[in-house]
Amino acid sequence: MADRLIFLTNDDGVGARGLERMIQMMRPFGHLVVVAPETTQSGMAHAITMSNPLFLREVRSEPGLEVYACSGTPVDCVKMALDYLLPGRKLDMICSGINHGSNAAINVLYSGTMGAAIEGSFYDVPSIGFSLCDHSLDADFEAAGEIVQRIAGAILEHKPALPLCLNVNIPVGRPEDLAGIKVCRQCRGYWKEEFFIRKNPAGRDYFWLTGDFQNHEPDATDTDEWALAHGFVSVVPIQIDLTNHAQVTSLGKFLNR
Amino acid sequence: MADRLIFLTNDDGVGARGLERMIQMMRPFGHLVVVAPETTQSGMAHAITMSNPLFLREVRSEPGLEVYACSGTPVDCVKMALDYLLPGRKLDMICSGINHGSNAAINVLYSGTMGAAIEGSFYDVPSIGFSLCDHSLDADFEAAGEIVQRIAGAILEHKPALPLCLNVNIPVGRPEDLAGIKVCRQCRGYWKEEFFIRKNPAGRDYFWLTGDFQNHEPDATDTDEWALAHGFVSVVPIQIDLTNHAQVTSLGKFLNR
Repeated sequence: MADRLIFLTNDDGVGARGLERMIQMMRPFGHLVVVAPETTQSGMAHAITMSNPLFLREVRSEPGLEVYACSGTPVDCVKMALDYLLPGRKLDMICSGINHGSNAAINVLYSGTMGAAIEGSFYDVPSIGFSLCDHSLDADFEAAGEIVQRIAGAILEHKPALPLCLNVNIPVGRPEDLAGIKVCRQCRGYWKEEFFIRKNPAGRDYFWLTGDFQNHEPDATDTDEWALAHGFVSVVPIQIDLTNHAQVTSLGKFLNR
Repeated sequence: MADRLIFLTNDDGVGARGLERMIQMMRPFGHLVVVAPETTQSGMAHAITMSNPLFLREVRSEPGLEVYACSGTPVDCVKMALDYLLPGRKLDMICSGINHGSNAAINVLYSGTMGAAIEGSFYDVPSIGFSLCDHSLDADFEAAGEIVQRIAGAILEHKPALPLCLNVNIPVGRPEDLAGIKVCRQCRGYWKEEFFIRKNPAGRDYFWLTGDFQNHEPDATDTDEWALAHGFVSVVPIQIDLTNHAQVTSLGKFLNR
């Protein structure tokens, strides 16, 4: 078991409490290599750094655990780890998180946590993004940590077919409050944005993005939003073919030439 | 026709030649509002700015055309335009590009051009990302501009059902070299990365991301990569349900509890 090699990252940065909790709960599974962003990368999605060079810094090294900080995005961290630090090494699992805040529904598209997990799955390694539905700095990661261990353990044991990428979201609460685990689908819905507008010392307007998630299928019972609202951990298996296959046919009728 | 309202953005920045060419070719369709990033945002995917405020600057205003620069990402530009500058206004189309470089196959996930187009489609407006398969600064945008006009015109005329988001890639060449237009699907494949490593003046290593796209289905004839390799403009209709529906069932067998 201890000869397993597991890669961890996140988008809240190398000092985040959610990452520390994930490291703690993943240590029994094998040797951990962590490359996490130097700074917070929330909302960085699948971004990569193209216009600037990247820097890598060793943060911590002890038996069973190596931690590095990378100046780039979560996806950069994955590429640095798998193509530079560990090239050709066989990895057993990649985990990203534990994120501060939900990445359910459409949030999967904006999420740096899930950007890293999706990128990890490109390397033929089971990849899991974990998020706790609590943005607060003093969020309680106890239950989330137990879920990390339970789901990572189940995947390592059952070895489902690859590619495998999971978007796991954990509702707020103590471990005994969780209703269970539900594998489900991504809920439809979008963010309705509002901008906070303020003036800087020079009198120029600046804008803070804020908004509310609008659930477009509040009555569906097979979605991640439903599971979370009912106290379940949601697990959405992720694929990355963005093709709308039905539209290939319908649009071809007037666009093909 | 001129009372149409059309929003344009890109990821190469407000001064990019591809944007200028798109503005030129879209002007006959209606009033254009442009919000483009102040700086290059290549590879920014679906990233949004959460940790910093945003700034907006008017660049140009004349009959039929308003141009603004935004300090954020391409997706920020869309949100600023639709939720702040034009709230409640009915838009007829959103176009992003013309990008310098291909966004076919897996590039759709990393692309700021496509991040903006996908975000635009959330507002119930037909959205199209245009990319020319040429990264060079002196790329020839003549054919790409004609394709912008032809495809935008066809969508405005045929009004296909929403949501609609198209990933349009245009091969290098003169207008007369194009073989035609093919609606197709996203090709499977990933980037194999390598890092250029150099030392900065202080002796510290820095890394530049570089790599090659590995086509995992070189023989398939219905993919965007095939279309481009054979001189066709590729058009992939995009959807954003990332759920792997088959895995919902198979994983549920051992994860649900």
